[in-house]
Amino acid sequence: MPTYRKVAIVGVGLIGGSVGLALRQRGLAEKVVGVGRRQSSLDRALACQAMDESDTDLENGVDGAELVVVATPVAEIADLVCRVVATAGKDVLVTDVGSTKATICAEIESRLAAAAGQFVGSHPLAGDHRTGPENARGDLFVGKTVVVTPTASTSGEALSQVEALWQNLGGLVTKLSPAEHDEALAATSHLPHLVASALAAATPAPWLHLAATGWADTTRVAAGDPELWGQIFAQNRAAMLAALHRFDELLQLLQTHLTEENWPELQQLLQQAKRTRDALGN
Amino acid sequence: MPTYRKVAIVGVGLIGGSVGLALRQRGLAEKVVGVGRRQSSLDRALACQAMDESDTDLENGVDGAELVVVATPVAEIADLVCRVVATAGKDVLVTDVGSTKATICAEIESRLAAAAGQFVGSHPLAGDHRTGPENARGDLFVGKTVVVTPTASTSGEALSQVEALWQNLGGLVTKLSPAEHDEALAATSHLPHLVASALAAATPAPWLHLAATGWADTTRVAAGDPELWGQIFAQNRAAMLAALHRFDELLQLLQTHLTEENWPELQQLLQQAKRTRDALGN
Repeated sequence: MPTYRKVAIVGVGLIGGSVGLALRQRGLAEKVVGVGRRQSSLDRALACQAMDESDTDLENGVDGAELVVVATPVAEIADLVCRVVATAGKDVLVTDVGSTKATICAEIESRLAAAAGQFVGSHPLAGDHRTGPENARGDLFVGKTVVVTPTASTSGEALSQVEALWQNLGGLVTKLSPAEHDEALAATSHLPHLVASALAAATPAPWLHLAATGWADTTRVAAGDPELWGQIFAQNRAAMLAALHRFDELLQLLQTHLTEENWPELQQLLQQAKRTRDALGN
Repeated sequence: MPTYRKVAIVGVGLIGGSVGLALRQRGLAEKVVGVGRRQSSLDRALACQAMDESDTDLENGVDGAELVVVATPVAEIADLVCRVVATAGKDVLVTDVGSTKATICAEIESRLAAAAGQFVGSHPLAGDHRTGPENARGDLFVGKTVVVTPTASTSGEALSQVEALWQNLGGLVTKLSPAEHDEALAATSHLPHLVASALAAATPAPWLHLAATGWADTTRVAAGDPELWGQIFAQNRAAMLAALHRFDELLQLLQTHLTEENWPELQQLLQQAKRTRDALGN
């Protein structure tokens, strides 16, 4: 028996499409409706079996849904969540999949007041440099960490339901405050993107044909959409500056060792980096 | 009919092992002898079909070989090449696979004088974070760029033969001077390693469980052997400092845009990085 009669997914890219596909493949929803601005994107998502129906009208698309997942670029999330709650009423449960949480959660709390209890911020750590609904996968969240970020105004019931959603899609749920999430992700995702971009942009074009797997791996994320990442940087500016400061201190230290030909100290830092990297695997 | 009667490979890790495997699979050598300090490493390489015989004695192992490939850590290469030429005589052709070229080629030229003509530096851009002979592949060089670095003292005959070797293993040969090679590789390989290491070391341990594919890709090379990479950094110090300076200027620029909330300029830099990254593919 399906868990949900109707789920609406606002924004049908890789993550939104994968939520739809996973819900459908697991028989968790009677009906999945994709909501987007452009019919062409919705048609691509329909072609990938990520949803049953589509709608370019937000209010119509979310009408009667018990669960709405907002999977748009981060700059649009807070506003869309507020519109969804306003139109779909006091029983709708709303979550998102944005890469930042503090700005989004704060804006929703200040705008919705008591109704903010119906929203729980989520961030499935399941992105990929391949984007768009064509790359959606029903097993995208299996074994992946999904951070949920309840606040003082989140209802316990809504939190349980959002945790259950991600667990039903195979995710491993971790609870953090929005601020904790943003500090951690600044270090583990947003700063790596900034550094990879600086590295790619700093590589003289005539030498690019001498780039091999090391360069390709280290700069891969720099292929991400500059507009989407610009929004993430803007929303998580303070935590990114802190992470950048920590990185810069280490880089300066490496530069000093290199300049002074202090090979034992340099090798010790490389060893420390290796230990951290090895701790993650793959 | 095999091209070589006897090829000796000094150092049987991923690259040395793959040269042996490729020569044998393509029927290019009657006999491939692996030379190494430890019998245990040689036994692993023998088990992988990377060679016909092994020898822990350098002079004995290279005796009678027409071609010797030195595939050891960079700090040992110049000395081994000089010993090989001294023992195997004036008809032996010697190449290496080191990630740096200027220091190695200069030392060999100064020590061997006229006999330096028998040596041609090589660098196949086919490394991998998986090391050791167990990961050797006979097709490792297929479609991969192999830089060869002739100098004024290189004989034309030796250069042609080393180019033919790599072409026979499927590589795409590019000629550069040792200094040009080192400047380019500082930007495309050595700096990315330094930056990835700083990024890994700067990530607070309690947040590592929130690292996903972006962090994994960007820091992957930091898992490399600190001793081997320390040697590479030491040999290519000047070019790395220059590459690091270019990187640092861009990073400071990104930091300024972030601090000043100058989103259009920041996004433009991300766009420039994306264009460079997209030019490479994968």
